[in-house]
Amino acid sequence: MELNGVKIDDNYAEAFPNWACRVIITAINEQWAIQAATEATGFATSAIGCPCEAGIEGAVDASETPDGRPGIAVLFFAGGKKRIKEQVIERLAECVLTQPTTAVFDGMPDAEERIDVKLHFFGDGFEYKKEVGGRQCWAIPIMNGEYIGEENFGIVKGVAGGNFFIMGENIPAALMAAESAVDAIMGIPGCMCSFPVVASGSKVGSNKYKFMPATTNEKYCPSIRDKVEGSLVPEGVGAVYEIVIDGVDEDSISEATKAGIEAATKIPGIKFITAGNFGGSLGPFKFDLKEILGL
Amino acid sequence: MELNGVKIDDNYAEAFPNWACRVIITAINEQWAIQAATEATGFATSAIGCPCEAGIEGAVDASETPDGRPGIAVLFFAGGKKRIKEQVIERLAECVLTQPTTAVFDGMPDAEERIDVKLHFFGDGFEYKKEVGGRQCWAIPIMNGEYIGEENFGIVKGVAGGNFFIMGENIPAALMAAESAVDAIMGIPGCMCSFPVVASGSKVGSNKYKFMPATTNEKYCPSIRDKVEGSLVPEGVGAVYEIVIDGVDEDSISEATKAGIEAATKIPGIKFITAGNFGGSLGPFKFDLKEILGL
Amino acid sequence: MELNGVKIDDNYAEAFPNWACRVIITAINEQWAIQAATEATGFATSAIGCPCEAGIEGAVDASETPDGRPGIAVLFFAGGKKRIKEQVIERLAECVLTQPTTAVFDGMPDAEERIDVKLHFFGDGFEYKKEVGGRQCWAIPIMNGEYIGEENFGIVKGVAGGNFFIMGENIPAALMAAESAVDAIMGIPGCMCSFPVVASGSKVGSNKYKFMPATTNEKYCPSIRDKVEGSLVPEGVGAVYEIVIDGVDEDSISEATKAGIEAATKIPGIKFITAGNFGGSLGPFKFDLKEILGL
Amino acid sequence: MELNGVKIDDNYAEAFPNWACRVIITAINEQWAIQAATEATGFATSAIGCPCEAGIEGAVDASETPDGRPGIAVLFFAGGKKRIKEQVIERLAECVLTQPTTAVFDGMPDAEERIDVKLHFFGDGFEYKKEVGGRQCWAIPIMNGEYIGEENFGIVKGVAGGNFFIMGENIPAALMAAESAVDAIMGIPGCMCSFPVVASGSKVGSNKYKFMPATTNEKYCPSIRDKVEGSLVPEGVGAVYEIVIDGVDEDSISEATKAGIEAATKIPGIKFITAGNFGGSLGPFKFDLKEILGL
Repeated sequence: MELNGVKIDDNYAEAFPNWACRVIITAINEQWAIQAATEATGFATSAIGCPCEAGIEGAVDASETPDGRPGIAVLFFAGGKKRIKEQVIERLAECVLTQPTTAVFDGMPDAEERIDVKLHFFGDGFEYKKEVGGRQCWAIPIMNGEYIGEENFGIVKGVAGGNFFIMGENIPAALMAAESAVDAIMGIPGCMCSFPVVASGSKVGSNKYKFMPATTNEKYCPSIRDKVEGSLVPEGVGAVYEIVIDGVDEDSISEATKAGIEAATKIPGIKFITAGNFGGSLGPFKFDLKEILGL
Repeated sequence: MELNGVKIDDNYAEAFPNWACRVIITAINEQWAIQAATEATGFATSAIGCPCEAGIEGAVDASETPDGRPGIAVLFFAGGKKRIKEQVIERLAECVLTQPTTAVFDGMPDAEERIDVKLHFFGDGFEYKKEVGGRQCWAIPIMNGEYIGEENFGIVKGVAGGNFFIMGENIPAALMAAESAVDAIMGIPGCMCSFPVVASGSKVGSNKYKFMPATTNEKYCPSIRDKVEGSLVPEGVGAVYEIVIDGVDEDSISEATKAGIEAATKIPGIKFITAGNFGGSLGPFKFDLKEILGL
Repeated sequence: MELNGVKIDDNYAEAFPNWACRVIITAINEQWAIQAATEATGFATSAIGCPCEAGIEGAVDASETPDGRPGIAVLFFAGGKKRIKEQVIERLAECVLTQPTTAVFDGMPDAEERIDVKLHFFGDGFEYKKEVGGRQCWAIPIMNGEYIGEENFGIVKGVAGGNFFIMGENIPAALMAAESAVDAIMGIPGCMCSFPVVASGSKVGSNKYKFMPATTNEKYCPSIRDKVEGSLVPEGVGAVYEIVIDGVDEDSISEATKAGIEAATKIPGIKFITAGNFGGSLGPFKFDLKEILGL
Repeated sequence: MELNGVKIDDNYAEAFPNWACRVIITAINEQWAIQAATEATGFATSAIGCPCEAGIEGAVDASETPDGRPGIAVLFFAGGKKRIKEQVIERLAECVLTQPTTAVFDGMPDAEERIDVKLHFFGDGFEYKKEVGGRQCWAIPIMNGEYIGEENFGIVKGVAGGNFFIMGENIPAALMAAESAVDAIMGIPGCMCSFPVVASGSKVGSNKYKFMPATTNEKYCPSIRDKVEGSLVPEGVGAVYEIVIDGVDEDSISEATKAGIEAATKIPGIKFITAGNFGGSLGPFKFDLKEILGL
């Protein structure tokens, strides 16, 4: 199979369920909404070593936010309801409430499952209830005026671990293709790339160091292609990147996979696109490249 | 006292000791070094609710990095040696090693106190020792080639909690002054602003909610100025921001305080600059504004 | 009249006809499309001293460009057909064809009036015709591959000089409001702000220097408010900015005026919004603030 | 010859004399200084079709500008003294004086040759002389306060047309190397890259179209490598970019050439570096790669 002259592997990505929460952060301008969103979703690439997975879903136009200011939608993912609640509370308290001019709104008002994120006690009695754009919020006096926040957020059973691999002649080609893929995925609602580009693929466990839960996936390493039996790096490939996608549902990941691969294959020097799975042992969700790309 | 026409409070900032670690992150270009540095220092505004405090110290010119590529210096701060080691390990493993084209180098080669940050087992036996720019590193095969990293980092007893407050006529004036202060501080070596701008000052404990360890500092809140006895918000002030500075030593915080206040007072609409302390009960370090500014 | 608590003057902007041409510039990524667009629309704030007026209209999603790559739409305005043709030719030849990976496409395929922009002779015989996304283009071999370009562009009789004035307590408030206005206008199709923010309003001629075709409009200068009879600067205003808008038709300017003013009035410290006219002597187009804002 | 594993051609760049003028633009923050500098140096890639050549030399720290605000140094180049004076006047009047919060200062106070850039008549009698940081300036009342400007600027006989060519396996590699080269050159004082990256090399005249003063340099075009006798594109090269450098003297161009090539050769996928000359017929300045790189 080929797309824009690039060979596409007849393979599928495998993913697993995960709780997802969307928060809309607004601020006096997009720059400061991005700043708060970036701080709140930092140290959150992979649930293996980070407290959660998180990233920016996309910009929300001022005309569509409850307070009419520029907004950024962020997504948080974690394996348990207790963990996601704890992470959303801590990250909003430490990394959003503290930031200039921010307000936060529930990004999943229709979700049945809910978590409470009670920050208003920070107001020490000076806080009060305030309706903003039809949302029941708390207004907390702070140094730059009032922090406005909803305190009940929807969560849904989402999907973590959607993915595809970009293989290029050299690092610049593969990296520029990965950047283009991430840019394209930013335009797809319902998903985000927490890394956003992964340079170090991993396998479960280790052949040499039994104490390691995960080690480099040598079959995807171009520099040791000749030393590794069963290397999956095709001849002429000098660099590989993985794009990992978490989404609120299967559709968003399918669309993101399609948009990301189409963008990546437009970059000169890209040789091969594939996806990662564990033979069906990891999770119930499968994203088949042939089907998604309509090939 | 006045500076550039802005009233300066005859006051001092109070700060306390904290372990500091500097890591130099290089990449194929500055954009990707910044991306790795930002991810690695996210969710790290305040040690109260975040695992550590961290931020970007500044850019390191390619001519001054061990591998001759563009670099970003980041600083991590934590209260204990065990905690700082754990945080540096996790953040380098999850948020730097995973990022495109990165390498990491010890940013405090002369420090006597050291921590081991052993990531090379990730190589599963394919890793090897490699000297880069006179540094003993490990090369770990990954998908985009080799991750290069030193594995022993200096730490020093630094200073956390340096600070000053910017008070302006309105939010835009105070915020633009805070931005200018942070930009100026970025040019001072040895320190960083983890937030970087704080919109929500806090006091220890609470008057109303006994279960809260910290609540809003109502004396710095312009919107409730008339309701709060002993408000510290001068008449005509509509917004207050705090700049919190962590540094590797006292001098860096003094210099940063000076550069930050000088930059802030150049912005039209700024009314008052002060600093925060707990009457000397918090920590051994005092940063006197009069002395620092030479007034 | 008030909007978001800001007083709106019962006044109108006056504008005049001007030829408009839209060019879609695509590139390997949005960064390089922006670079080419910025170079091509530089030195083009005001037709008084610049060869033309030009600016970025907005981003065009890859899914909507003829070659499926990220695009930027730019608009050029000039008073005569000969002048606009000459400027589009020179700016595409010098500032787009020369830039990495660019292609250009006609942004007004339905316009009846057309200009030829023949660049293909640059190929010295190696050029050839090529259809891209249904567009008849020329492919010109250059150093980074092929430059792709349509060579016939639509032009329409547009409108230049739409405007409104933002008055704030101080420079930071007025400037942040102007930035927000420009951001909001970037989301409105069919128009652009060539400056994008004007800090120096002018009047026709001079009271003191007869050789000057235009001089500062002292009635809008806060620093000499007390010296100028009939100053239009209200008390408490420390800074004024004008947003000038050129559009392909009246509707785009009306929408941009509405979006820009709404965004500006959301910024704290804004006191007054008005518009500029010459009592109806300048041009046939009037943009009434009361009507546009529905007040 | 090789540098960082990349083959370096034993060749030289040829350049010619040109008048150079440096202007320091300051503003309330670096963002707005960059905006003014970008507008003022737009439509200025090549003197062949643009009114002049211009670009950003680099940032000037607030501690080193006359008014203590963040600054950007820009350089203008033109073939005649009349032309450079005219261009500096028009570009400062239309693209700097009009921009928010700007001030301009002479960037060559020691130069013997001087040009007058009288903008103060715009003040219509409200202007007045004001000393700022030891510089004799005019203060002109405008809408956001006062525009501050020196009105006499030094010019020197500089050098235009310094250059080198980067050849890579594919567009991403060559483009990323060109970006790195330009970033490195931004750190060298005294020079700028007006394009900044050239994708379309040209030769004087045309073989086929006698009316064309310049056409594509087919010998540097990878896509027609097999059709062109004497092609200078080595096998395996998919993309070529030229970096053109204008400097205030020969040394700045030599240093920029060195820094740019060193940065470019660090990018994977780069195959060959050379320089462009006309056999010594163009100009008196020669920049020999072997000598400059110390090979």
